[in-house]
Amino acid sequence: MSQKIINTDDLAFLLYELLDVERFTEFPRYADHSRDTFDAAIELALKVGAETFAPHNHLCDGDEPRFENGKVVIRPEVSEALAVLRDTGLMAASQDYERGGMQLPSVIAQTCIGLIKGANVSTQAYAGLTIAACNLIMAHGSEEYKQRFAEPMMAGRFFGTMCLTEPQAGSSLADIKTRAVPAGDGSYRITGNKIFISAGDHELSENIVHLVLAKLPDAPPGVKGISLFIVPKFMVNEDGSLGERNDVTLAGLIHKMGYRGTTSTMLNFGEQGGAVGYLVGEPHQGLAQMFHMMNEARIGVGLGSAMLGYTGYLHALEYARERRQGRPLKERDPQSPMIPLIQHADIRRMLLAQKSFVEGGLALCLYAATLSDQKKYAEDQQVREESAGLLDLLIPIVKSWPSQFCVEANSLAIQVHGGYGYTREYPVEQFYRDNRLNPIHEGTHGIQGQDLLGRKVAMQDGRFYRALVQNISNTLSECAGHAQLESSRALLAEALDTLQAVTESLQALRREDPERALANAYLYMECFGHVVVGWIWLRQAQTALRGLEQGGPRTAAFYEGKLRACEYFLRYELPKPLALAKVLGEADRTTLDMPEGCF
Amino acid sequence: MSQKIINTDDLAFLLYELLDVERFTEFPRYADHSRDTFDAAIELALKVGAETFAPHNHLCDGDEPRFENGKVVIRPEVSEALAVLRDTGLMAASQDYERGGMQLPSVIAQTCIGLIKGANVSTQAYAGLTIAACNLIMAHGSEEYKQRFAEPMMAGRFFGTMCLTEPQAGSSLADIKTRAVPAGDGSYRITGNKIFISAGDHELSENIVHLVLAKLPDAPPGVKGISLFIVPKFMVNEDGSLGERNDVTLAGLIHKMGYRGTTSTMLNFGEQGGAVGYLVGEPHQGLAQMFHMMNEARIGVGLGSAMLGYTGYLHALEYARERRQGRPLKERDPQSPMIPLIQHADIRRMLLAQKSFVEGGLALCLYAATLSDQKKYAEDQQVREESAGLLDLLIPIVKSWPSQFCVEANSLAIQVHGGYGYTREYPVEQFYRDNRLNPIHEGTHGIQGQDLLGRKVAMQDGRFYRALVQNISNTLSECAGHAQLESSRALLAEALDTLQAVTESLQALRREDPERALANAYLYMECFGHVVVGWIWLRQAQTALRGLEQGGPRTAAFYEGKLRACEYFLRYELPKPLALAKVLGEADRTTLDMPEGCF
Repeated sequence: MSQKIINTDDLAFLLYELLDVERFTEFPRYADHSRDTFDAAIELALKVGAETFAPHNHLCDGDEPRFENGKVVIRPEVSEALAVLRDTGLMAASQDYERGGMQLPSVIAQTCIGLIKGANVSTQAYAGLTIAACNLIMAHGSEEYKQRFAEPMMAGRFFGTMCLTEPQAGSSLADIKTRAVPAGDGSYRITGNKIFISAGDHELSENIVHLVLAKLPDAPPGVKGISLFIVPKFMVNEDGSLGERNDVTLAGLIHKMGYRGTTSTMLNFGEQGGAVGYLVGEPHQGLAQMFHMMNEARIGVGLGSAMLGYTGYLHALEYARERRQGRPLKERDPQSPMIPLIQHADIRRMLLAQKSFVEGGLALCLYAATLSDQKKYAEDQQVREESAGLLDLLIPIVKSWPSQFCVEANSLAIQVHGGYGYTREYPVEQFYRDNRLNPIHEGTHGIQGQDLLGRKVAMQDGRFYRALVQNISNTLSECAGHAQLESSRALLAEALDTLQAVTESLQALRREDPERALANAYLYMECFGHVVVGWIWLRQAQTALRGLEQGGPRTAAFYEGKLRACEYFLRYELPKPLALAKVLGEADRTTLDMPEGCF
Repeated sequence: MSQKIINTDDLAFLLYELLDVERFTEFPRYADHSRDTFDAAIELALKVGAETFAPHNHLCDGDEPRFENGKVVIRPEVSEALAVLRDTGLMAASQDYERGGMQLPSVIAQTCIGLIKGANVSTQAYAGLTIAACNLIMAHGSEEYKQRFAEPMMAGRFFGTMCLTEPQAGSSLADIKTRAVPAGDGSYRITGNKIFISAGDHELSENIVHLVLAKLPDAPPGVKGISLFIVPKFMVNEDGSLGERNDVTLAGLIHKMGYRGTTSTMLNFGEQGGAVGYLVGEPHQGLAQMFHMMNEARIGVGLGSAMLGYTGYLHALEYARERRQGRPLKERDPQSPMIPLIQHADIRRMLLAQKSFVEGGLALCLYAATLSDQKKYAEDQQVREESAGLLDLLIPIVKSWPSQFCVEANSLAIQVHGGYGYTREYPVEQFYRDNRLNPIHEGTHGIQGQDLLGRKVAMQDGRFYRALVQNISNTLSECAGHAQLESSRALLAEALDTLQAVTESLQALRREDPERALANAYLYMECFGHVVVGWIWLRQAQTALRGLEQGGPRTAAFYEGKLRACEYFLRYELPKPLALAKVLGEADRTTLDMPEGCF
């Protein structure tokens, strides 16, 4: 459990036993890879995380980026850590060999990034945003832009940002006002204000490449009129050298509850007349292009949330083993020695809850990353199609389930620590604050719920929803007849039936009265998410049982722990959101009908 | 809604319509009071809260107390606000007239303090601890100590602390090591270390009166050997003037996630040989004495939590009314005007959840405060006895239910604000951080659960548990036949049946196997708490319906809001913890049996 970032046994179990990612070495793209190269990358990321990122996590929380003399001042450890990350090549882990990348499967690249997030989510964000922006240019940019902007990003020389949100528009991208006017030379002049731009200004890299959503003069109204532009902080000459400062101004810093090491900025484009911007791909395709990358970004949010939950859990576990407090109920002698916290049932309940949330959340995100690999590189067209569809369907869950329940895990980690957990002298309160961002950015819970129930479930007439249900049913069938899985199997089967009934009635209603059908979409998503994670847990239990019976590579206690955490999740956690099945199935109108004046 | 601290209509509804606190003017102790004097005190507290406490709440969060040159430096606004509070007489609101108090009922005094907490919980803490320590001396101290220490506390000249926790003992008071040795002159010499002492050192008052738990040389082991001592920071001469500095040293400050305006300290007693202490009451009675005041303190925690939830809710409500974002589902024209957030069903869901938590939590705490008045001052002995028993039974709920669900309300207030809510430029994130202390101090959730299921429910052979069930059943009977209450009535009736069945089976098991019966005590408490708050909501709905039908003093929209919030709580919230009835009723062993090595 290096530095309490992850249980490496668990990671190996998830990757190689549960998800069998070694099979990706059979994909032509990954033919040069082997389990050894995967493990080498993971060990490298873990080492960089533990030795270079984790040590300054708390420091940056207490010493935020400052705006001084027109520049953003950031602690030197951040720049040093990012240089180490750059030098390892991990910033281009999934890129093609010929671009200088490692051409690793997405699931391995995400694992590596996840480990860095678990070590220090704020410093990682500079790299994470760069990778995301780079991927976007690689997917939609011209060869010229790939060379001029994306390649220096892969090399870690330029960093990137995503400039979507505007003060007046928030989540409502249809309402952005930033304008792009053709300059006549193939470039554009951008004017407008953006807010909540993470890593929007700093001195950490030679240049910053902003990806900016803006509207062309002839843009149709709403989301159909959004285009995507590259707007560098410093102009980049044809030979790759840096030119003048572009017309992008730092208007101010935003101070957050957590994630304090990542600067959050307000940026003004075109205060002196117009920032130079370069159109990515075709006009008016900005939202579609952004959405193309959104899946990856949303897996990243879910994974970051799971990893923050995970590190909190490991800290709580260590504390519970070491800290002595109180006595067993039956012990009447006040002079008998105190017992470790972990011997109290209520502490074990809180640790089991954390284990079920964080290991379940991590498994979910890694599973999603395998779908991402399959959809792009599986040889069988049908596998590619089904993987793409399943991933689209699951994305709202992958983004929001860990964001909800791994924040809860962080709260339980504080609770296990008692008063100490509430102090900044211990790290768990920072994880809780950092993690609270995740239900908000990259699409709030509300937006994810609408996406799931309003679009994804019904996609292609429900084809991928049915495929998921079939996958879950297959696992249920496989588990039948195993006494140790029976109680969990039965609970999941019942929950799946309930979810199907609710889904059916809401989908029928959606055609007549979408507003009512979608009124409780977030609560529907919680049910759906618990069924999916319950399934992931049953698959873990099934795999662990096989490991126990066939003498798998891990200890009996490890496998036993998986079986028990599965039981815990299905008995103690699954029933809670499912208790609203009646409210959901009947499309209860209480929230919809509440008059504004009655609050 | 003065300064978004409270909805004054709601407060009047709770106090005068739901709880009919005007009836306390018939108690001889409160004979000089009237609704006017109650309202005057409340208005005063609200004015002081809004004008003097609220304005520096955010400032102190960003500028914590510092330890400089042996002294604790605190922003000047804190001292100024506490002086205003002192001058209003609110610090002695419930004390006897002859001691300089206002002799107000506990429910009114708690309301006043609650309003100050809603304005600025950190600055209020200095006064709150003083009131609690003062009450303890008034209840158990000699007349000499009342005059020498308690009266200057009522006058706000001396402040107080509670010194219970020690680094090695945490919640386990049986294991404290602080020693008290008789000095031969009737006083004692105290040596030991205390941690997490709020307001443990500062320059805000002339003196600090520490109430310290310590053990005498002949003390029996465990909790039966704890005595309570007064240990002043500066010695107090017989004429009331201050003498030398006592042997109490500030060992350091603790830095918290929230509640940052309240210093949290480590104190060393007797570094130079022994701090002078005075025994309160009889030897070895410290824990009993402390518990005598614990009910009041625990109501205070619940109330503070409810008020932090309440102010967060009012901020979210205002934001949701003002901020325009997105369009109705049916609106296809992207150029149509954006609608206020509150028009989205998912936002209304989050506001309804907050309303149901904070108004439910506040009603619960105020109800508990009325029991506190009745138990002391009701003329009928039977009423006194039953009120005392009901209060004892409910205390774990009153302390922990708001601490759990009003923190959740604060999280929802952040979510309603979107990205803005996560920034320190808006106040809701501070409420969330401040409120996260409440599930920990004054007895963690785990301890409250044990107290409820392990002691309180079975007290006097279940007498008060049965009395509570009878009270709930009475409300259910009264609501029968009212169409607008029927759905809520039926849901609560069903939940009550479930709770009774679970309680019965756990109480039976407790005699054979207490460890197993208590393993899930926290989850039992959540069920119990939801049934109690469900009952409080049904009583609010019943009262609101009467108000609607008989033209009560508030608007129809207000009463309608109560009816709808009641429905929301019973439909959407009550089912969740109750979904674990099976796990609880069967005394599921999953958490109890999890082997340590399997985590």
